[in-house]
Amino acid sequence: MTRMRPAAVVGDGVDAIDTPALVIDLDAMERNLAAMAAFAREHRVALRPHAKLHKSAAIARLQIAAGAVGVCVQKLSEAEVLADAGIADIYISNEVIAEPKLARLAALAGRIHLAVAVDSALGIDRLAAALKAAGSMADVFVEIDVGQGRCGVAPTAAGALAHQVVSHGLRFAGLQAYHGGAQHLRTAAEREAAIHHVVSLVRAAQAGITASGLRCPLVTGAGTGSFVFEAASGVYGELQAGSYLFMDRDYADNEPTPHAPHFEHALFVKSQVVSRGPSHAVVDAGHKSHAIDSGLPGVWQRELVFGNGGDEHGILRPRPDAGRAALPQLGETIWLVPGHCDPTVNLHDHYIGLRGGLANGVVEAVWPVDARGGVR
Amino acid sequence: MTRMRPAAVVGDGVDAIDTPALVIDLDAMERNLAAMAAFAREHRVALRPHAKLHKSAAIARLQIAAGAVGVCVQKLSEAEVLADAGIADIYISNEVIAEPKLARLAALAGRIHLAVAVDSALGIDRLAAALKAAGSMADVFVEIDVGQGRCGVAPTAAGALAHQVVSHGLRFAGLQAYHGGAQHLRTAAEREAAIHHVVSLVRAAQAGITASGLRCPLVTGAGTGSFVFEAASGVYGELQAGSYLFMDRDYADNEPTPHAPHFEHALFVKSQVVSRGPSHAVVDAGHKSHAIDSGLPGVWQRELVFGNGGDEHGILRPRPDAGRAALPQLGETIWLVPGHCDPTVNLHDHYIGLRGGLANGVVEAVWPVDARGGVR
Repeated sequence: MTRMRPAAVVGDGVDAIDTPALVIDLDAMERNLAAMAAFAREHRVALRPHAKLHKSAAIARLQIAAGAVGVCVQKLSEAEVLADAGIADIYISNEVIAEPKLARLAALAGRIHLAVAVDSALGIDRLAAALKAAGSMADVFVEIDVGQGRCGVAPTAAGALAHQVVSHGLRFAGLQAYHGGAQHLRTAAEREAAIHHVVSLVRAAQAGITASGLRCPLVTGAGTGSFVFEAASGVYGELQAGSYLFMDRDYADNEPTPHAPHFEHALFVKSQVVSRGPSHAVVDAGHKSHAIDSGLPGVWQRELVFGNGGDEHGILRPRPDAGRAALPQLGETIWLVPGHCDPTVNLHDHYIGLRGGLANGVVEAVWPVDARGGVR
Repeated sequence: MTRMRPAAVVGDGVDAIDTPALVIDLDAMERNLAAMAAFAREHRVALRPHAKLHKSAAIARLQIAAGAVGVCVQKLSEAEVLADAGIADIYISNEVIAEPKLARLAALAGRIHLAVAVDSALGIDRLAAALKAAGSMADVFVEIDVGQGRCGVAPTAAGALAHQVVSHGLRFAGLQAYHGGAQHLRTAAEREAAIHHVVSLVRAAQAGITASGLRCPLVTGAGTGSFVFEAASGVYGELQAGSYLFMDRDYADNEPTPHAPHFEHALFVKSQVVSRGPSHAVVDAGHKSHAIDSGLPGVWQRELVFGNGGDEHGILRPRPDAGRAALPQLGETIWLVPGHCDPTVNLHDHYIGLRGGLANGVVEAVWPVDARGGVR
């Protein structure tokens, strides 16, 4: 069984891209890629971008070519698909508990450099049993809860789990310490304060591990909203930021972080006006074309506001400061900026890679979203 | 390029279904299917269920075998996929404006019984040109806006469009009149009042069409929250309800409609606890496993509340009236009831069809979500 056919083929002009379609502005993406790679080099910190964003082997290869040490994923099925496509260094920054999944994980660890997070004694026991049965090895990060309130143990409990990892003969690789909520605090000062607290919790966990006689080789974490602070902390050796590549409406709503690279919007949903009323227009993109967990999409460079039109439509109205002349005509192209890129990408089977800008560009690449639907 | 491998194979016990997975309780779904078919027979109204819900040829075949005259879809790409899989009577209850799409639509109309909605002179002209070029024919419904405020013309404008349809030699099939917002008004009285107003608008449109010398063969519309009222109106000849098949948390939150069939929850996301804190548990299903446009999922038959855990996680806490003993253990299965089925289904590549109930059932069917991603 195959997927939907792509919205365009290589060589098409921008107007020929069928709608709705997930479109990368390749020029903008490459500038983002280079800016983040330069930041990591300059700050002597490893970059392991989160591929949960893009789910694409082609993009992972671009990141690795630009200096990334590998990629993160959230789910085993993402790791399997990217490994099949040639990505050889993958960290599942999440817990895996089901024994059939752990058997698959152990098999995967036999053919690539694989790491995984743990936050429970049961999880470590099962992981160790699966790796032993497969005769393979994985790096193991102990996840600590640094304020997200989701997975991870209290910093004071990290040492005991690290010892358990080592007692099974597994490689204790360090600490997973990510605060998702901190990424979206609107002011730079709030984000800095949140990461300051994160760093104090990481230091406490490190101290417990060191005091018990183990080394803590690496602390890994951080996202696009906060990585400048983790990089400056002196405790993080690896940054997992992913969204910098595409950016989204929600990250752009943050106050910029001083001394952070500037990232541009590089991911869009191309849509078309399919209906036009006296005071609104309707485009052919709704919740099945873009995720709305971080709010509705923005409208790119038009005096328009996007309103909820359900699964398959968006309702455009003029901005309060604009008149009815701002309304687009039937058939016009409207470029949407997704509120949140990760789950938006996961709705689409392909990326259409555009070179030369949204107005007059040409399709240079059609990339599958390889791990689309990889939730297991 | 292929899709994710399914979460189970036929014959697996329920415990072997990998998580997260989209699971149909086949017994409950078949009861829903039979109840709606009986309602339509009894009220002498045609049923054309909306396949935008399920996007599945296997399920469309079950609906047609139970008496449905065909199915609706929202997008041409859905129609193409379902036609390829053998569904021969499809109505695209939405506007198509792009000329390349209209050329595909016209080609499709050459091999199945196809209908489409229009709400503009430009749309009709382009549709007619495409059908003429292909030498094919389609049924054309004029969409009127009955309160949704999205697509459709004012009822008084329907006659002119109907005449334009006929002047091109196309088949004027009647009126598309659907009020999505009315489906989710919480009390039956509110829904009845909303549909009462819808019916008055439909009658006005019909009167204008008849006065100008045209017949209005059919009025089509209605959804799971309101179809009892459209069926009783005397003006609707065809019901498009789709969600009755699976139901979702949001529809179940409606006050029941008097004299409506009872529909059961038949669609679930199977999830697993992958992390456990002192006062919360974390399951492996987030926004990439279920849509949240109509709110977070419910937790099936547990004293638990689902909290937002981001793209890949859900955070479970005891209900206010339950104690910490309600928290599940690491590895436990948790069944989630999606807030909104349509965009939830669109996240998954396959349905796992379970026979014999969620506790001890056996996988009887693995069906592809054929038109997943069919947004164009």
